[in-house]
Amino acid sequence: MKSELDFVNYLKNIKTFNKNIIEGIGDDCAIIKFSSRKKYVITSDTSLLGPHFSKDYTPEEIGHKSLATNLSDIASMGCVPLYALYDITIPRISESWIKRFFDGTRKLLNQHKVSIIGGDTTKGPMSISITLIGVQKNKILTRSGAKTGHDIYVTGNIGSARAALILDKKTKGYKYFRKSLVMPAPRVAVGLELSEFASSCIDISDGLAKDLKSIAISSKKGFQVDVDSIPTDPKFDIYVEGNLKEQCILGGGEDYELCFTANKKYYRKINNISNKYNIKITRIGAIKSTGYRYSLNNKQYNPKVTGYDHFKGK
Amino acid sequence: MKSELDFVNYLKNIKTFNKNIIEGIGDDCAIIKFSSRKKYVITSDTSLLGPHFSKDYTPEEIGHKSLATNLSDIASMGCVPLYALYDITIPRISESWIKRFFDGTRKLLNQHKVSIIGGDTTKGPMSISITLIGVQKNKILTRSGAKTGHDIYVTGNIGSARAALILDKKTKGYKYFRKSLVMPAPRVAVGLELSEFASSCIDISDGLAKDLKSIAISSKKGFQVDVDSIPTDPKFDIYVEGNLKEQCILGGGEDYELCFTANKKYYRKINNISNKYNIKITRIGAIKSTGYRYSLNNKQYNPKVTGYDHFKGK
Repeated sequence: MKSELDFVNYLKNIKTFNKNIIEGIGDDCAIIKFSSRKKYVITSDTSLLGPHFSKDYTPEEIGHKSLATNLSDIASMGCVPLYALYDITIPRISESWIKRFFDGTRKLLNQHKVSIIGGDTTKGPMSISITLIGVQKNKILTRSGAKTGHDIYVTGNIGSARAALILDKKTKGYKYFRKSLVMPAPRVAVGLELSEFASSCIDISDGLAKDLKSIAISSKKGFQVDVDSIPTDPKFDIYVEGNLKEQCILGGGEDYELCFTANKKYYRKINNISNKYNIKITRIGAIKSTGYRYSLNNKQYNPKVTGYDHFKGK
Repeated sequence: MKSELDFVNYLKNIKTFNKNIIEGIGDDCAIIKFSSRKKYVITSDTSLLGPHFSKDYTPEEIGHKSLATNLSDIASMGCVPLYALYDITIPRISESWIKRFFDGTRKLLNQHKVSIIGGDTTKGPMSISITLIGVQKNKILTRSGAKTGHDIYVTGNIGSARAALILDKKTKGYKYFRKSLVMPAPRVAVGLELSEFASSCIDISDGLAKDLKSIAISSKKGFQVDVDSIPTDPKFDIYVEGNLKEQCILGGGEDYELCFTANKKYYRKINNISNKYNIKITRIGAIKSTGYRYSLNNKQYNPKVTGYDHFKGK
C-alpha cells in the first residue's frame, strides 16, 4: 500500500451490501439511489493544518476553503449541493474562532443554498472533515465517460494555487496568488451546465497531470495535451520562474478548477457557458485511444511531475 | 458559547434552505426525506486519541469503536444502517495499521451489512471521522416523543465503560471493564424493534443523567428515576468504590446502551425483545410532567454529576 490509489483499491475490495450503490469508492463522490426518481452524490474530505492550510489562514479562510474543496467535488459530478455535516476538531474552543470560521463558510453555504444538517465538535489538533450531499440535475458526470476524439477543457487558470505554495511568502508573487490558494471558487454553476452534455469531468485538486490521468484510466483511454495551451494567470510568467512553471501547471493541485471532456460539437455551447458565467474555459487537448502524451513548442514532451498524493504527503 | 449545547444552538441558527430536512441539528442523527417513500438518517462523529481512545487501543479496537459509536446513533433512531464514509487521519501511513484498523471495523460492517461508499485519508494527528447513513424501518425514534406516565428503560448495564476510564489500568477492575469501554456493542437490532412503539430514544454516550435530560428537554417533560434500579454489571460493586459509583452510573458516558421511553402497555413486548436478543432491558423510572428527580434508598436524591461535554472536554 504505497499510494493513495493502493488505499482506494484496498477499500474497494471491502464487501458492500446494497444494490442502490451506483458508484462506490473511486470517483470524486459516491452515487447512491435513494429514490426511484433521483440519484444523490456524497463526498467527504478532511482539511488539516499542514497539508491543506497553514498558520497564516484566518478562521474565515479556513471556513471558506474547507467547504469549497468539498463543493468542488459536487461541482465535478455536475450536481446540486444540498446538505453538509461538519466534524470540527480545534485545540481550544474559542467562540470568536468558531464564529469567524462559520462567517467564512456561511457565504458559500448561502451562495449555493447548502444546509448544515449535522456534525460534531471535539477538542484536539485542528482538523475539519466535511461531508456533503448533492443531487443530480441532469446526467451525473464521472471520470469514466471520455471517448476517443473528445476535446479536453479546463475552467479558469491553472497553476495559481501551486504558485502561492511554492513562492516565498515575502514575495509580491505570493501575495498576488495567495487568494487563488486560500479562497478557491468551486465551479458549481459551470458543472451543472456541463451535466447536460460533458462526457467526463474531474476537479483539479491533485494537479492537472494526475487528475487528467484519472479520467484517462477510468475511461480506458489516452490523451494528447498541448502544454502551451494550458491557461495561466496573466501575471504567471512574471512571478513564476521557468523551472517551476511545469510543477505549478501540471504537478500543482488545489486549483479546484474543472477538467472535462466533451464531443467537438459542443464547442459553441461551451463558449456560451464561458460567456454566461464570465469564466474562462479553454481547450487544452483531445482524448486519444491510448497513451498519455504532452507537447510543448510543437514537440512531444515528458513532464517530470506526477501530482499530489495525500497518502504520501507529496 | 460555553458548552456543546451552546454550539449546537449556534449551528441551528445558521440558515437552511431545503424543505426535505425533517430534523436538522440537535438529535443523534439528522432526518432527510430523499424520496417520497422513506426517510433517511445521517450522523457524523469524530473519534480522537485522547477523548475517545488511548494509546493502548489496538488498531482493530479503534476500527471497531469508531464505527460502533456511529452505529449507536443510528440504533438510537431505530433505523437500519446502510452506508459509511471514512475520513481517516493517521500520523504515519502504515499498511499493517490500516489493515488491522479495517479488520476491526469490517466485523461490524458485515454484522450490520453496512457498505463503505467513500472517504479520505490524510497524514496528521490521529483522527477518525465517520459519516453513517441509515434508513427508517418503522417510525424514526427521536428524543422528543416522551409522554407523561411513560416508563423509562435502559438496555444492558450502565457504568461499565466509565469504570474502565476511572480505574487504574493496573487493577483487576480495569481489566474486567476494559472490553465495555473499548468494544461497545451498538444496539441496532433492539433499536429496530423499538421503532415499532417506543416514544423516544437516545444512546447513552455522554452519561445517563445528561442523555435522559436531553429526552426530557426535547419532549418538554420531566422524569423520576430510581437510582437503585439502574442495572450494573454483577462485579460493579466489587470493583468500583462507593464514592465513584454515581459518577460511573449517572455521569459516565460511552456505554452506548439505549435509553428509551414507552407506554406502560408495551411492558410485555419489551420483555420479549429482551429475551429474543438476550439483552437485559430494565425499567428505571417514569416520565413526569416536570422536574428532573432521582431517588436513592427511597429518598429524593440530588446527583452531583452532569455528564460529559465534548466541548469542554469533561
